[in-house]
Amino acid sequence: MRENYRKLRVAVLGGGTVGAQVAHRLLDNADELGSRSGAGLELIGVAVRDLSAKRSVALPKKLLTTDPHSLIVGADIVVELMGGLEPARTLVLEALASGADVITANKALLAEHGPELFDAAAKVGAQLYYEAAVAAAIPIIRPLRDSLAGDHVTKIMGIVNGTTNYILDEMDTLGLGFEEALAAATDLGYAEADPTADIEGYDAAQKASILSSLAFHTAVPLVDVYREGITGVSAGQIEAAKRSGHVIKLLAICERRVDAHTGQEGVSTRVHPTLIPRTHPLAAARGANNAVYVEAEAAGPLMFYGAGAGGPETASAVLGDIVSAARRHVAGGPGVGESTHADLPSIPLSHVESRLQITLVVADQPGVLAAIAGVFSEHQVSVETLHQSVATTEEAGAQTATLVIQTHLASEERTQATITALEHNPVVLSVSSVLRVEG
Amino acid sequence: MRENYRKLRVAVLGGGTVGAQVAHRLLDNADELGSRSGAGLELIGVAVRDLSAKRSVALPKKLLTTDPHSLIVGADIVVELMGGLEPARTLVLEALASGADVITANKALLAEHGPELFDAAAKVGAQLYYEAAVAAAIPIIRPLRDSLAGDHVTKIMGIVNGTTNYILDEMDTLGLGFEEALAAATDLGYAEADPTADIEGYDAAQKASILSSLAFHTAVPLVDVYREGITGVSAGQIEAAKRSGHVIKLLAICERRVDAHTGQEGVSTRVHPTLIPRTHPLAAARGANNAVYVEAEAAGPLMFYGAGAGGPETASAVLGDIVSAARRHVAGGPGVGESTHADLPSIPLSHVESRLQITLVVADQPGVLAAIAGVFSEHQVSVETLHQSVATTEEAGAQTATLVIQTHLASEERTQATITALEHNPVVLSVSSVLRVEG
Repeated sequence: MRENYRKLRVAVLGGGTVGAQVAHRLLDNADELGSRSGAGLELIGVAVRDLSAKRSVALPKKLLTTDPHSLIVGADIVVELMGGLEPARTLVLEALASGADVITANKALLAEHGPELFDAAAKVGAQLYYEAAVAAAIPIIRPLRDSLAGDHVTKIMGIVNGTTNYILDEMDTLGLGFEEALAAATDLGYAEADPTADIEGYDAAQKASILSSLAFHTAVPLVDVYREGITGVSAGQIEAAKRSGHVIKLLAICERRVDAHTGQEGVSTRVHPTLIPRTHPLAAARGANNAVYVEAEAAGPLMFYGAGAGGPETASAVLGDIVSAARRHVAGGPGVGESTHADLPSIPLSHVESRLQITLVVADQPGVLAAIAGVFSEHQVSVETLHQSVATTEEAGAQTATLVIQTHLASEERTQATITALEHNPVVLSVSSVLRVEG
Repeated sequence: MRENYRKLRVAVLGGGTVGAQVAHRLLDNADELGSRSGAGLELIGVAVRDLSAKRSVALPKKLLTTDPHSLIVGADIVVELMGGLEPARTLVLEALASGADVITANKALLAEHGPELFDAAAKVGAQLYYEAAVAAAIPIIRPLRDSLAGDHVTKIMGIVNGTTNYILDEMDTLGLGFEEALAAATDLGYAEADPTADIEGYDAAQKASILSSLAFHTAVPLVDVYREGITGVSAGQIEAAKRSGHVIKLLAICERRVDAHTGQEGVSTRVHPTLIPRTHPLAAARGANNAVYVEAEAAGPLMFYGAGAGGPETASAVLGDIVSAARRHVAGGPGVGESTHADLPSIPLSHVESRLQITLVVADQPGVLAAIAGVFSEHQVSVETLHQSVATTEEAGAQTATLVIQTHLASEERTQATITALEHNPVVLSVSSVLRVEG
């Protein structure tokens, strides 16, 4: 043990699963965390809503308080694990203003108020750490901020929501419909009673905003993230994806690219169900796991994989950040601010080119293929592959066929116009699926 | 651009592929690297062996020098990319003694002289960065040192040598023999003219020593790393692995475990061909790629995947370290020393329990299974599965059968005694393969 060992006071805000685990580890592993930090870490208290609530891990009564403000006043490091926007935002700003470093796992807070918080930290030379906010214990924030700081990230594709990955994986593996798979996820505790934030892609969109901002040195507000959930994904689409050697994943895609309209470089950030080849590394992320695939100019493709949620996993990421903050205090000097120097414009989805897989049910009669091909050519959307499956259904007394068409890269505007034209074409009985393709 | 922008002087030692790329990026992206660092980065020179040698990237003549010592004198950050033990060791020590931070991609140097270098850095409060020394641009050093600093790593299994992974993958995919696959790797530039360091596992052993030391906060010298290369892996073993749902990978395994003899906790570090299930995440690392699988108590299993070698990839990791070093200089204070507080003993392979897959050719006659089972039971090695394949060959005039036996965990001592006993058993015609199993 060192002689002039600096003592750092740590306050934990929030006594839920993660908060209790973090507090417990700080008490239990103080010596070890100290020798890794170069500083003594003293837990000065845990701010909770209800002093008598049952905790997942027992904590000494004398450490609990219902007054977070009093804890912040005396803290060098404040760990915000309350979740939600308020009072978390006010408390984090209060902590930063006091010069404390702040660690948070609060993705909603960062996605909504990131720039305000980063500015507040920069003003006093404090630092905001948030490794736990995306993909829990999978290191992704630090690799993007530090490891790739000398490189240019060009694209991120992330499976960053475990609930939806579990649901899609169950649909893929067991052939379940969406509702059945959701029920299974709820039974197992993978989905919350109100699953909206997960299945509608809100959670993934928050994480996409955080990743895009960090990777491209640009503030990407949540409102600039295109978002589409998985409630519309059908068992038929999953089955068709399988047949074409694909799997459907809900991806958070962050991409530095050229705006198809303005020709200017910008950032496209979008969350939607996506077809990827079954051989793509991301396809190996099964169950409720997360995986983040990063392409950088020099480093090439990298993938980070693991559990993306859970109390111990999130606590692991938070404790890693606490050690980083402690080392920073020992070193002294200002924190590393969030860099936004690139300041790229956000590209709306309508200015992004993508590849689509479009499934049509058509009348099985001569001239149909030519008619369909004509629609694509008319809208200048180039077809990469076209598969016609054996006519299997009868509709309106006539034989029908199913066409699965994959396009080359085409602008959203053109593909949307193509789809509208297909819907109105007399040989098309229905446009049964439209999915974006990556990888 | 800031007003009182601090200028940091960077010296690059080594003008090979990586050195030239790093120097080029420092010149070309100075502004961007500056805004990410909070400091100006000025390349003061590149020390080379031969001023007139052809470089992969052209560099201004006036920056080249054959005198590394003169560069070190004036540098805040020294980047060692010469490779080899000397003069690299002397120059790194010289740089650290002068108070400069040092960045190195030199795995041999770290594996042989790590503790000496870390001590030299700690003495003056400088820091040694080495993200590029293991798996190039795949962030693994920083995740272990920072992200998992509040967790306990229990095991690492890494595919950390691209050449051997390429060879094994070709054998697996195309059914090639070792020599053919090596020749293909040499043709493609994946294997060097003298491939010994790769195929005999020396390169992987150096990386294992580095990972084990870092993950377990313990100096693990290279001499404590068990090492076995892939030259003995046969097409027959690869084929048999396939049939049993496995794939053979050369793994660097770093494990915190109990010494089977002393009962004390220690660290086992070993490199050997290993059978892993084809469903294991590591099995997805194809071609010359690297992948590192990390198990930690709270974070659970994590995997890091990407290209493990290459000029741009290694340069990406080095530049990330340069930005980290620059940020540290801006902050001031001492560097984060290597932590060796756990100081665990190394466990020799003979004290490690492992699972083996043993393949025997036996006489196809009544009583053979009982005799074999007797040998295992006599040595207290428990059998997990036993597969007898159809007798297909004739040897010495008699029908033969092949037995593939997978054991439960058993000590090296017992399994070795079992193998010796099998070799001397009259019903055993040959012990045709012995492989360790993980995952």
